[in-house]
Amino acid sequence: VTTTAVDGFVANGVHCGIKESGALDLALVATADRQPVAAAGVFTSNLATAAPVAVSREHLHRSGGHAVAVILNSGNANAATGATGYDDAERMCALAAEAIGCEPQHVLVCSTGLIGIPLPLKAVESGIGALVDGLSNEGGNAAAEAIRTTDTVRKQTVVDVDGCRVAGMAKGAAMLAPNMATMLAVLTTNASVHPTVLRGTLAAAVNDSFNALSVDGCTSTNDTVLVLARGAGGDVALAALRDATSKACADLATQMAADAEGATKVIRVRVKGARSAADAYTAARKVAESQLVKCSFYGEDPYWGRVVSELGSAGVGFDPDLVEVAYGGTVVCAAGIATPYDDVAVRAHLAERTVELTADLGLGRGEATVLTNDLTPGYIDENKRTS
Amino acid sequence: VTTTAVDGFVANGVHCGIKESGALDLALVATADRQPVAAAGVFTSNLATAAPVAVSREHLHRSGGHAVAVILNSGNANAATGATGYDDAERMCALAAEAIGCEPQHVLVCSTGLIGIPLPLKAVESGIGALVDGLSNEGGNAAAEAIRTTDTVRKQTVVDVDGCRVAGMAKGAAMLAPNMATMLAVLTTNASVHPTVLRGTLAAAVNDSFNALSVDGCTSTNDTVLVLARGAGGDVALAALRDATSKACADLATQMAADAEGATKVIRVRVKGARSAADAYTAARKVAESQLVKCSFYGEDPYWGRVVSELGSAGVGFDPDLVEVAYGGTVVCAAGIATPYDDVAVRAHLAERTVELTADLGLGRGEATVLTNDLTPGYIDENKRTS
Repeated sequence: VTTTAVDGFVANGVHCGIKESGALDLALVATADRQPVAAAGVFTSNLATAAPVAVSREHLHRSGGHAVAVILNSGNANAATGATGYDDAERMCALAAEAIGCEPQHVLVCSTGLIGIPLPLKAVESGIGALVDGLSNEGGNAAAEAIRTTDTVRKQTVVDVDGCRVAGMAKGAAMLAPNMATMLAVLTTNASVHPTVLRGTLAAAVNDSFNALSVDGCTSTNDTVLVLARGAGGDVALAALRDATSKACADLATQMAADAEGATKVIRVRVKGARSAADAYTAARKVAESQLVKCSFYGEDPYWGRVVSELGSAGVGFDPDLVEVAYGGTVVCAAGIATPYDDVAVRAHLAERTVELTADLGLGRGEATVLTNDLTPGYIDENKRTS
Repeated sequence: VTTTAVDGFVANGVHCGIKESGALDLALVATADRQPVAAAGVFTSNLATAAPVAVSREHLHRSGGHAVAVILNSGNANAATGATGYDDAERMCALAAEAIGCEPQHVLVCSTGLIGIPLPLKAVESGIGALVDGLSNEGGNAAAEAIRTTDTVRKQTVVDVDGCRVAGMAKGAAMLAPNMATMLAVLTTNASVHPTVLRGTLAAAVNDSFNALSVDGCTSTNDTVLVLARGAGGDVALAALRDATSKACADLATQMAADAEGATKVIRVRVKGARSAADAYTAARKVAESQLVKCSFYGEDPYWGRVVSELGSAGVGFDPDLVEVAYGGTVVCAAGIATPYDDVAVRAHLAERTVELTADLGLGRGEATVLTNDLTPGYIDENKRTS
């Protein structure tokens, strides 16, 4: 399944030696016929951009939005590695290009893992033969396996809308994870679409999915979402592509939230009644990234005072006399003050695996939802040491 | 000591019944002769402003910056309590004014504790007599004790500069603490100064002290810093007042950082070489508030990659090829990449109680320092439940 669930794509994952554990650490997704197809990417906004991000961006630019393959490694982020890191990322593309028979600029590259450690290029070199030899249209699982870091499960999706199929794999257990790092996603589709349109479709889908996910408020140096459009699907409607891409991204983002480091719960923070959608997003993100709010969710404690405090300091339009807060639909704060509520119902909702927090600012029609998690001792334990 | 270390001020702290534990929960600081003196305040920027903040602000406005007394309670924040909360805060001032014999507008009020619970005014009413009867020039300790919430120690300071004395008490174990909340501080001084000048002096001191402290990135609904200037010190130079006020605020802020919830370390995050001081402050705060960076400090792990990643996503001028990172003066990242360093020295520094992190952006002369703490299971434990 996953990336190879779309006809015409092959993939594979192998262990090349980057991870000492012996786990899979090198992946490749490619067109079966080695011909370039429309491709697009959305990358991290972090100015401490990792080398593979810079190289993928450059390759998409040079090729006018076309690619044959994506090579990915886990266990090393190739970030904060300077000019050598850039050369190493280029070399990864060249190795893959040579082995599969295409131009280096038609290979995109993603890395995830520790920041600041030179990429062990010899490991990649030693693994590239087996990686390419094993490419198959059943290789999607192995590829998804090979990009895992602290992810406890593979993240994969297949979405069909009116003949348009979008399939994908992703990794990410924190926006910037513990030892390891980053969220990566590679999507494939059968749609036939111009690279520019593909780019816009992907950006819109990412905005409503991965960008609406904040495990810990940390934006990685390596975040990358790529899509390759095979174009074999004939006349797939653009609306279908948009819908399928959005659903695939949303599915993968939800899987990430569910597998976030140390988390025991997925929290869906919805802000409505804001002056604008942008205000709603800013406010939802402020609440979602609040250490104190996240601690309350871990303790299953309906302490809405912290939510109101975060809304009041989010830097958006706010009137303390209008705000309403609800857990799982049960209003606990109305017109800015405590209101009698069914304590049993609220406690029962907070004890669930997925919790819904809704804040209505009462000022307008702006609305946004951000996914996050509770903050737990497990998160600290996973992140306190790199080794 | 503390607020009563300045001649002409009296104080007291009693248990009136807000805290079920029986601990002191009501405090008063007043001029010994019940005459109004120059007073100024700096308040939270949170739009979910607590009632006592609104009332103190209003009283300072109406009185043209003069006050006789400050009444404070712990155990209840009187925040998100609506119009009733506002009336309750006014009533606290009126009770104190009646008991000590002054105008209500000459009484300022601070509350700290749980948000969203109506203030138990009856407790305050029952305690006011004993509170005022017990006012003395040795009562500073009791007052400082009565404003504690999760603080494990009283926070007090006395600073003398060229004949100017600034004394003070404060509470705060998180910007917005667990069950309880907030940072509060009350300063007294012997200086003779116009309220407007006093306000400016206080604002500058707060900016470099409390505003440069971020335990968890949460801005409370109740944050308040007040100063009362007795004016009995004769011709104290303004420079001395400025210096003493800054030192007193810095001392109290450092005590807060040292006593932050669950923290095992105080981290001094210094950013230099930024394009401006504002950029440096923004970047330092981004690093200081990063969950991942704080986890690394808890684990005493020199994972500078996370620091670079936060700097790159701080939204300020940043060049990944110029950044330098040092722990306790030992450079671990130069020109944006790993550099050989004395691992023993760095590990030894990270094992200390106070850790110095310096990041040089290499772009300009902007510089700022923000105090923070490590993120620990203890913080989560203190904050997961209000009861």
